[in-house]
Amino acid sequence: MTTGLDWSAAFAGRAARMGASEIRELLKLLDQPDIISFAGGIPNPALFPASAMAEAYQAILADPALAPQALQYSVSEGYAPLREWISGHMARQGVPCGIDNIVITSGSQQGLEFLGRLFLGPHDTALVTAPTYLGALQAFNAYEPCYDTLTPEGGNRTPESYARTAAERGGKVKFAYVVPDFANPSGETLSRQARLNLLDLAAALDVPVIEDSAYRELRYEGEDVPPVLALDVARAGHIDRTRTIYCGTFSKTLAPALRIGWICAAAPLIQKLVLVKQASDLHSATLNQMAMHRVATAVYGPRLPDLRAAYRRRRDAMLAALQRHMPADCHWTKPEGGLFVWVSLPDGMDGAELLARAVREARVAFVPGKAFFGENARANTMRLSFSLSSEQAIETGIARLGELVARTVSRAA
Amino acid sequence: MTTGLDWSAAFAGRAARMGASEIRELLKLLDQPDIISFAGGIPNPALFPASAMAEAYQAILADPALAPQALQYSVSEGYAPLREWISGHMARQGVPCGIDNIVITSGSQQGLEFLGRLFLGPHDTALVTAPTYLGALQAFNAYEPCYDTLTPEGGNRTPESYARTAAERGGKVKFAYVVPDFANPSGETLSRQARLNLLDLAAALDVPVIEDSAYRELRYEGEDVPPVLALDVARAGHIDRTRTIYCGTFSKTLAPALRIGWICAAAPLIQKLVLVKQASDLHSATLNQMAMHRVATAVYGPRLPDLRAAYRRRRDAMLAALQRHMPADCHWTKPEGGLFVWVSLPDGMDGAELLARAVREARVAFVPGKAFFGENARANTMRLSFSLSSEQAIETGIARLGELVARTVSRAA
Repeated sequence: MTTGLDWSAAFAGRAARMGASEIRELLKLLDQPDIISFAGGIPNPALFPASAMAEAYQAILADPALAPQALQYSVSEGYAPLREWISGHMARQGVPCGIDNIVITSGSQQGLEFLGRLFLGPHDTALVTAPTYLGALQAFNAYEPCYDTLTPEGGNRTPESYARTAAERGGKVKFAYVVPDFANPSGETLSRQARLNLLDLAAALDVPVIEDSAYRELRYEGEDVPPVLALDVARAGHIDRTRTIYCGTFSKTLAPALRIGWICAAAPLIQKLVLVKQASDLHSATLNQMAMHRVATAVYGPRLPDLRAAYRRRRDAMLAALQRHMPADCHWTKPEGGLFVWVSLPDGMDGAELLARAVREARVAFVPGKAFFGENARANTMRLSFSLSSEQAIETGIARLGELVARTVSRAA
Repeated sequence: MTTGLDWSAAFAGRAARMGASEIRELLKLLDQPDIISFAGGIPNPALFPASAMAEAYQAILADPALAPQALQYSVSEGYAPLREWISGHMARQGVPCGIDNIVITSGSQQGLEFLGRLFLGPHDTALVTAPTYLGALQAFNAYEPCYDTLTPEGGNRTPESYARTAAERGGKVKFAYVVPDFANPSGETLSRQARLNLLDLAAALDVPVIEDSAYRELRYEGEDVPPVLALDVARAGHIDRTRTIYCGTFSKTLAPALRIGWICAAAPLIQKLVLVKQASDLHSATLNQMAMHRVATAVYGPRLPDLRAAYRRRRDAMLAALQRHMPADCHWTKPEGGLFVWVSLPDGMDGAELLARAVREARVAFVPGKAFFGENARANTMRLSFSLSSEQAIETGIARLGELVARTVSRAA
């Protein structure tokens, strides 16, 4: 009687949007040792504070006064001393706040998923840049939104235009989502004026701004631009009167595998997010929060200069190699920080087709750009990450890639 | 210009269902040292394998070959050796399966949330027992379901009746959810026949069964009943043809704070859940998965007898104390395992009102039963947990509670 169930037929309508990710397949390429991979947008494990981590776990688990607490259920909002540390960190970024403005999430990815669940109904519109972070699109997609395109640097459309488009699609604009610093995938940074314009647009539409700050600490040159939330606090006078929701993470500064991120926002929103957190997984791992608090306290600030120097050398190598090896009709961003360079290939060239050939013929991998668009994807694009490769491997890989692109162009001509 | 946002107005419709939990408030009572609390349904921290945990983290983080992997991003389905261990564990429970039938979740709570997201649309119906696990209701509520009531032991209604009721409410039956072993909150265990009847009902409705097995290993007397999934595999011939979704966890057997649980089910469903996991938080903490694999391998089986003995003594103390101290018109379950006794108070008595007086007048806490119902809540109920208190504290607390109930009865008379 009990025979196979047609799982797809049993799912809710929204499940159709929970689609496969090309990234998963691409990550498998990293396992092939002769591939030079610019695909994985992940930090360099040689830069993890492994000994500080080992000391922190040892200090907690060997202490009979701490171990039982570290292994027990805890509160959904997160470990209070860690939230204290984060509120101090936010204050140093120009965002004075208290621990009631902080909820711990399992990486900033979880924060994005929670915000999709809280804000998006079917046919509602999320405003995103083009390109935008693929993981955010994946998190939002379950809630069946439409996407409309922000152009914060060039000047967005009018609030009325966004509202009208959203209404035509059967919903409302629910938020604007940006990665303002050294964005994944574009590497670009929003100017102060673009951030202020974004706040104006959000105020006119009366919607929140989601600020995904994953790469903020990884600046290699130029001057810091204040977080959107800091500009919002400066205008509103107090964080509890702001509309900006700041998603932070330790993944790029300390280590990703502990899955510790946070959301910093107005207290009434944080209170709701604590309930969402409780229903979702009760709380993030207690032990990891306690360890992260110790490691952040001990090494966060002191290690940033070395971290930045190590990534800057790789970025410089990649920009120099692109300059040397890419054909004339390719263009790329010049990121002041982060982990990514975004390349526009000649018109008509498809990044996904190029990848298939790149792996086969040049033993080089990257992420085709198409997946990073909410709408109107531009296929002639690719994301290159310089975080994992040595300067020598970057030179070799980009030379091979440039040669392949040149060959493809001349074949098409 | 940027002034406070009306957050509630900005939320999606479903957010209204993401409600506050009384449990949160109750947990705060645990901090008052003179309160004897039977409220927290959490394991006893004195029983955590703290030294095995300390050794596992030390062995991983002090090893330069392991630490970078342990601190890095990893695959969404989970750490393969841990999934291997779990597939062996499932086989020992009568569920032969491979690692493609296992996805790691951040506690079984996250599994429940994923399943709600995958299956439930607004107005769809989830079949649950009365009472049922509060955390499951919280996880499902975001997806705006209706609830209808299973009575697996007494005989469920006909499939046609459930289907008709669901249709009248504007949706379909999407799954049946049960905690078959020593349920939270009732302490009751479904008989083999009740489990088979449940599979028949689910087959007739062509829906999945969600089996929440959180307490399964904590049996103190009587004989194991096979998991619903084992019965399903025995009928269907292979796990990939089953309809049962088994949610497992290490929270009650090893430690909850690592947030490591799993779902074991047909491979096509697991593949979809891996995508949901990726969109939700990328993966569970790599380090914790590696540590849990070591600890489970080293101590899981050997420590179960001590764990069961320690909880059995507390259960016996609570049942004896209830017998001694509760007035004649109270009834309670006699659990063969788990952490909970479910008490029916005299008609007309409200568990929530009793709690307020119990904390004030008797310095005893418990969870009022009302929150544990999907529909038609019975207010004259309470959940008592015996996990955290000594046998002496159980005797004292139940004596005080029985005295208060008797006093309340006589006052009402």
